Amino acid sequence: SSLSAIGNTLSASVTVMLAPLLQRKRIVSSPNLSKSMIHITDPQKPNMTENGLGHRERVLNVDTMNPNVKRIEYAVRGPIVQRAVQIEKELKEGVKKPFTEVIKANIGDAHAMGQKPITFFRQVIALCVYPDLLEDDKFPEDAKNRAWRILQACGGGSLGAYSASSGIEVIRQDVAKYIEKRDSGIPSNPDDIYLSTGASDAIVTMLKLLTSGEGKTRTGVMISIPQYPLYSAALAELAAVQISYYLDEDKCWSLDVSELRRAVKAAREHCNPRALCIINPGNPTGQVQNRQCIEDVIRFAAEEHLFLMADEVYQDNVYMEGCQFHSFKKVLFEMGSEYSSVVELMVTDCTTWCGFRGGYMEVINMDPEVKLQLTKLVSVQLCPSITGQALLDLVVNPPQPDEPSYATFIKERTANLHILSEKAKMTEQVLNTIPGIHCNPVQGAMYTFPRLTLPEKAINAAKEQEQAPDMFYCMKLLEEMGICLVPGSGFGQRDGTYHFRMTILPATEKLKIVLEKIREFHKRFTEEFS
Amino acid sequence: SSLSAIGNTLSASVTVMLAPLLQRKRIVSSPNLSKSMIHITDPQKPNMTENGLGHRERVLNVDTMNPNVKRIEYAVRGPIVQRAVQIEKELKEGVKKPFTEVIKANIGDAHAMGQKPITFFRQVIALCVYPDLLEDDKFPEDAKNRAWRILQACGGGSLGAYSASSGIEVIRQDVAKYIEKRDSGIPSNPDDIYLSTGASDAIVTMLKLLTSGEGKTRTGVMISIPQYPLYSAALAELAAVQISYYLDEDKCWSLDVSELRRAVKAAREHCNPRALCIINPGNPTGQVQNRQCIEDVIRFAAEEHLFLMADEVYQDNVYMEGCQFHSFKKVLFEMGSEYSSVVELMVTDCTTWCGFRGGYMEVINMDPEVKLQLTKLVSVQLCPSITGQALLDLVVNPPQPDEPSYATFIKERTANLHILSEKAKMTEQVLNTIPGIHCNPVQGAMYTFPRLTLPEKAINAAKEQEQAPDMFYCMKLLEEMGICLVPGSGFGQRDGTYHFRMTILPATEKLKIVLEKIREFHKRFTEEFS
Repeated sequence: SSLSAIGNTLSASVTVMLAPLLQRKRIVSSPNLSKSMIHITDPQKPNMTENGLGHRERVLNVDTMNPNVKRIEYAVRGPIVQRAVQIEKELKEGVKKPFTEVIKANIGDAHAMGQKPITFFRQVIALCVYPDLLEDDKFPEDAKNRAWRILQACGGGSLGAYSASSGIEVIRQDVAKYIEKRDSGIPSNPDDIYLSTGASDAIVTMLKLLTSGEGKTRTGVMISIPQYPLYSAALAELAAVQISYYLDEDKCWSLDVSELRRAVKAAREHCNPRALCIINPGNPTGQVQNRQCIEDVIRFAAEEHLFLMADEVYQDNVYMEGCQFHSFKKVLFEMGSEYSSVVELMVTDCTTWCGFRGGYMEVINMDPEVKLQLTKLVSVQLCPSITGQALLDLVVNPPQPDEPSYATFIKERTANLHILSEKAKMTEQVLNTIPGIHCNPVQGAMYTFPRLTLPEKAINAAKEQEQAPDMFYCMKLLEEMGICLVPGSGFGQRDGTYHFRMTILPATEKLKIVLEKIREFHKRFTEEFS
Repeated sequence: SSLSAIGNTLSASVTVMLAPLLQRKRIVSSPNLSKSMIHITDPQKPNMTENGLGHRERVLNVDTMNPNVKRIEYAVRGPIVQRAVQIEKELKEGVKKPFTEVIKANIGDAHAMGQKPITFFRQVIALCVYPDLLEDDKFPEDAKNRAWRILQACGGGSLGAYSASSGIEVIRQDVAKYIEKRDSGIPSNPDDIYLSTGASDAIVTMLKLLTSGEGKTRTGVMISIPQYPLYSAALAELAAVQISYYLDEDKCWSLDVSELRRAVKAAREHCNPRALCIINPGNPTGQVQNRQCIEDVIRFAAEEHLFLMADEVYQDNVYMEGCQFHSFKKVLFEMGSEYSSVVELMVTDCTTWCGFRGGYMEVINMDPEVKLQLTKLVSVQLCPSITGQALLDLVVNPPQPDEPSYATFIKERTANLHILSEKAKMTEQVLNTIPGIHCNPVQGAMYTFPRLTLPEKAINAAKEQEQAPDMFYCMKLLEEMGICLVPGSGFGQRDGTYHFRMTILPATEKLKIVLEKIREFHKRFTEEFS
């Protein structure tokens, strides 16, 4: 496998690194020995060591390590991305390739793709980090006020102090106010808000709380297929049962409650279904759910007694005319107290400055004793990054119309969203002109998940190499064109269908290149294997 | 219990919050119902609901939640700290107390305690966050160069982009160089460095990899008693077996290999001991291990086939004359290749800007295939906070003698360490003048763990309240004096002994107040219960 090939390379380089140091004795990675074996040779006492410690298995090797960790797959940063990094290094070293740069469209990393960071956010965080700048005339007053307010809430007036484990209180209050405003006044309680290290952290924490039981009573969690692989990875690590429900590709990746019913019914035979995860707007599928669908999902969760987890990290990214983001919480409360007082709901959101790892979750109808357990659980990691918390505060509490930074802020934010909206349309249009590729409208989020028609011969060639056909396709696309996408098999798809995920984030000119290269490659690939 | 009391309060306040919203129907937290039950009443249809969803258990309640999470204890942020926060609020609201402020000496949070953040670090991070400042004459050239170099290594030249999951490559290189320099040239490979979200993240990740098996084959992990409760919390969550070995309080909390032998032998009866965790300098105990002890530990790990985990986060904090920090890695390699080529070692370190959550681990002799699994595991959380990574880069690569910021940097750092050193001495001296308190020298780290002699009557009074006697003591100290410490029972201690942990971080004048208040309280407490 490619894993063990890299393993061998690493092992060899470790030997080389240590060689000058280990004078008489040498570590030898003999190909006849298991890689997990440490083998010491001594020119004077071959196959012997003074302390008798040689020739033994490592304490920690692939056979003895946590089997749940082994079961994790995480395609977004999987082998194809590792190969892309390697190719970039080869290009730097002067290796000749049929392209001069690798374009990574595998991950929704806005800043890496050239999105301009909001100036106001940059200013406030810089002021917080280095408060001497509060004396500087170059910074607008509203940025200074915001920084001052955040610093007042930090231990010792420094971003370098720990916060409460659930996050800085004034920031949790700001998040609650933001949610209330978004949801037309439906109240949000700051005590229900937990700041987190990105949305991933919040999702994993929630899944952790939900997992219990053994065998047929083991917690089952319903996730969409295609899914964002954080979910399957977390469930694998927790040894919880993944219950897959399929989105309907023919109906623009919509969610049908009858499919939820089918999935939960089948799952009750072998596990205890306890939670239902929804990603809206969709990742990797880019659909935006309509209000009716959300109501149906809530009713289903209530009837089936499931804890609802709504991943709404792309709530600000809706492009398609006629589409609108509906928050699960708002719909839940508008359905009346027979639902809003019983359905347990957790909602996550995060900032688009991905590297700052800022996010939060809101929990609705959570058992008060479980909340105490949640608070305890998050306290073990002390607190989420304070810079991430501070950034989140700015996202939920941006410049107001009467403040000096407002005009620039609105201009920058609108420009970012406008460009994304254009790229969403362009991506769909161009991909749908390629014979053998079908692309649903990119209604929201930052991704598309187009379907590939692959020739039988290509599918067989992939199977010979023990690769998923779309992995085979994407790997060739990377090697021949320098375009890095993630194969659909990393997200899950109906058997016999093939997809890739690409983000629409690359700068317009680059995105055009990506799409044209896909066109050229797909044609060539289809001809090669027909 | 106090937990369920808080639970009731929360539950009541949720009802109040939702009351205006839920018009006809009301949520009632009836005392006759289990708290995990959701109960809907309707004035017109008492005890009935339209959709039949009322009167049922929550999906997620204390009976159905993850039992491993329930077993977690985390004293550093436990009930006493929650009470401290509550008292602070009461003070703000004007409630009269026998003190005017709560002094929190429960956590090693340098900035919160007033330690001045290093100016150079503040400048570079501010430049990274808001690169327009690179044009500003007020910033020294070396700060600008450093910021420029970090930004070049970031996606899109922005701290807001994701990095590689193991961290930014140039920063991993800088960490490796720093380790090499510290360890007199013993090589460090950047591929063995994984940046992390604080040291806690790295420790939990490593323990996760090590945990496997069931029943008698379940992974056992040796941790010191007293320990830093992150370890026991992580082991509880992973359902790994905690193997306690006791530090020798009478010998200044030193570590005796015969005690390790006793502990591992006993543990082999019921689990599979696979790892040994060491904290040096000690937390909560403040001792610094001598070289002989470290050699003995390494030999023991090799003989018993244990994976070594060395928590060296306080390596820069050694105060006592005659004490010196010895890195486990350096000692391992100086013991010769019969050890350095077989002992699997993981070492962690982090920055003192706690809120930035910057840390790293170095892994030595790790199986190459396990390293791939580790890389995959950390990739699920995408990457550690980039601001934390950037800060770590400055810690390991501070201003050099020929650079403009050097003089100020050295002055600031030396002042911080000098003050800590004085406070370490003062703490020991003052506490040892209090009859009934015995305090070992604070050789390093930021804590002391003094032993309390408690009157029999106090111990009985605590037992009547179902409290650990030192929790009873610390809670009274908090209520009567406004001093927040952590009871020794949260860290583990020999049966029948009682301690508290306090950090030496409060500003000198405040530390004096803390120590005098402890003196006054201890005298009063002893009299009250004698």
